[in-house]
Amino acid sequence: MSVVAQLLDAYPKDLGKVDRDKLVACVEACIECAQACTACADADLSESDVAELTKCIRTCLDCADICETTGRVLSRHTAYDANVTRSVLEACATTCRASGDECHRHAPHHAHCRLCEEVCRRCEHACRDLLDSLG
Amino acid sequence: MSVVAQLLDAYPKDLGKVDRDKLVACVEACIECAQACTACADADLSESDVAELTKCIRTCLDCADICETTGRVLSRHTAYDANVTRSVLEACATTCRASGDECHRHAPHHAHCRLCEEVCRRCEHACRDLLDSLG
Amino acid sequence: MSVVAQLLDAYPKDLGKVDRDKLVACVEACIECAQACTACADADLSESDVAELTKCIRTCLDCADICETTGRVLSRHTAYDANVTRSVLEACATTCRASGDECHRHAPHHAHCRLCEEVCRRCEHACRDLLDSLG
Amino acid sequence: MSVVAQLLDAYPKDLGKVDRDKLVACVEACIECAQACTACADADLSESDVAELTKCIRTCLDCADICETTGRVLSRHTAYDANVTRSVLEACATTCRASGDECHRHAPHHAHCRLCEEVCRRCEHACRDLLDSLG
Repeated sequence: MSVVAQLLDAYPKDLGKVDRDKLVACVEACIECAQACTACADADLSESDVAELTKCIRTCLDCADICETTGRVLSRHTAYDANVTRSVLEACATTCRASGDECHRHAPHHAHCRLCEEVCRRCEHACRDLLDSLG
Repeated sequence: MSVVAQLLDAYPKDLGKVDRDKLVACVEACIECAQACTACADADLSESDVAELTKCIRTCLDCADICETTGRVLSRHTAYDANVTRSVLEACATTCRASGDECHRHAPHHAHCRLCEEVCRRCEHACRDLLDSLG
Repeated sequence: MSVVAQLLDAYPKDLGKVDRDKLVACVEACIECAQACTACADADLSESDVAELTKCIRTCLDCADICETTGRVLSRHTAYDANVTRSVLEACATTCRASGDECHRHAPHHAHCRLCEEVCRRCEHACRDLLDSLG
Repeated sequence: MSVVAQLLDAYPKDLGKVDRDKLVACVEACIECAQACTACADADLSESDVAELTKCIRTCLDCADICETTGRVLSRHTAYDANVTRSVLEACATTCRASGDECHRHAPHHAHCRLCEEVCRRCEHACRDLLDSLG
């Protein structure tokens, strides 16, 4: 069991009717995506065609920031606020979509964009899955 | 002219039809609110009635994270993506509302909650103003 | 191979003489510790003895912030600056030590502090290992 | 009086013998520098000579992250830990120095680097001033 899942189990109060598996998957996807986007933006900076990658860098930087914030919000359960959780998940899914689409354009040329696209798609789906399960 | 405004003026490409004053006001409100919420959550921790303030702490922590991310996204203009900007501003306004409402409950007892409520309201309005101006 | 390791392999330029295994281990420890500290601080907020846990919350919040920043700095390789890397690793090890020590005090009573202490110790050691390997 | 200063005044416990003016100045410098570095890195991405600015982008990204974390740590006063504060201030001053030096190289050509250099120098000095005052 991952540390994320173990800490969720150690939360001392009732979590309500949240789907624990989807919640854990989403937190894990967010922190993986934040790191991947940070690394992809940096790899872009070291490519000889960096001038073609500026949109990719910008979108990855946004995605890293939003995924980190979403991973944090989802790691807190005290005084749960459905409106906040939903709006943050929407923003995260939207940004992962944008970042995944842009990395997709560069995936044929750059292995880091290929990896980052996969991770962004996984995180987008994890956010949508969790959103759907919130009813 | 603030550093935020000076840096916006130094951006080398066309910014499109964004309302510069509302954009600057929103970036400034986001970074002010991120700091205020961090400080308010910490002040809550040092109050003798901390057990009554746990919802306030949690909401302020979320608000600090989302305001920081929003301030970053709005400070980037390369390859502007309207969907990302809108969804992040929605999440920020929603969270500032939640944090402002919770601080409001404690404003009669704690000066930091009174200050933090004001800053959260200002940031919520700055986000809504900018959202409206995006058309 | 983890996504962190795969992205390191996809970095397009020479990484110099860094120990790749220690670098990957440190990035993974930082992002794990950032999440664990965020979750532990929140779990503290929901404990009935929250008034005894305020130092733990504060130290975990610092540790989450510094671990996230350290994970980001270590995920970038373009234009490596040894002074920056070293000073950030020092700050991260110092903060993980403080957070691990404080969680240790509460480990007999709270499972989340027990888990969080382990993760903080692991991250502190990963930072020190990487620092030592930098020569 | 700035919101940062007002919130410091509203902190409910004794702050010890810290120099309040230097503390407020340092928090304000950190949040100003985090925003300036985010904006400068983005402006770099939109310059026609972006390939010459990759070190500047990387250093500004690090500096934004470390300044934000330092501003947060300095905004917390509950259970003050001198070792953590010192090590974070050292890392922040080191990174502001690196970022200011790199922006200095591009200051003759780019107004955003000129502005960002000034802000980085101011933040480096504010960190050193506060460090010195801690004894």
